[in-house]
Amino acid sequence: MAVKVLAEEAPGELRFAELRRRIPGISQKMLSATLQSLVRDGLVARRVEPTVPPAVHYRLTELGLSLERPLSALRVWAETHMPEIDRNNQLADESPPN
Amino acid sequence: MAVKVLAEEAPGELRFAELRRRIPGISQKMLSATLQSLVRDGLVARRVEPTVPPAVHYRLTELGLSLERPLSALRVWAETHMPEIDRNNQLADESPPN
Repeated sequence: MAVKVLAEEAPGELRFAELRRRIPGISQKMLSATLQSLVRDGLVARRVEPTVPPAVHYRLTELGLSLERPLSALRVWAETHMPEIDRNNQLADESPPN
Repeated sequence: MAVKVLAEEAPGELRFAELRRRIPGISQKMLSATLQSLVRDGLVARRVEPTVPPAVHYRLTELGLSLERPLSALRVWAETHMPEIDRNNQLADESPPN
């Protein structure tokens, strides 16, 4: 989800607070850990602007951008088929276990 | 990984033991939980042959097959870029934290 939001902004950057605003329901801790891991993998670049307080900006790297296409295909699949999967789960709840 | 192995066999079926043999390092418990979840979602069909002991066969459904293409694209991306990601992680270990 962080990759998707950053891809929408690419090649531009987003600040932490703006990223968080665009990912409903994510905690500060979870987003922070996700970004740290993406930066470590080289998918996201982090730039600290030496203001007071420091402004931290994030953008997708070339590697991160190359992930967006296959990830987006999977996202589209999930969004397309989620109603069917939800129905299958409901049916499984209703039928007796075997 | 279970989806990949079943896709290689599609539209044929695989028995539990054969599936496990083709997924190196997976535990019986983990494979069993994975298959249960895939069956519940409607991605995999389970067929019990009433022999003694019963033989249990698994195959991808149409829905499961439709997942294979986007999932495969993501797998190819991961395999292609894993060396680069590993290098990035090594560099992160070597450079001082900031």
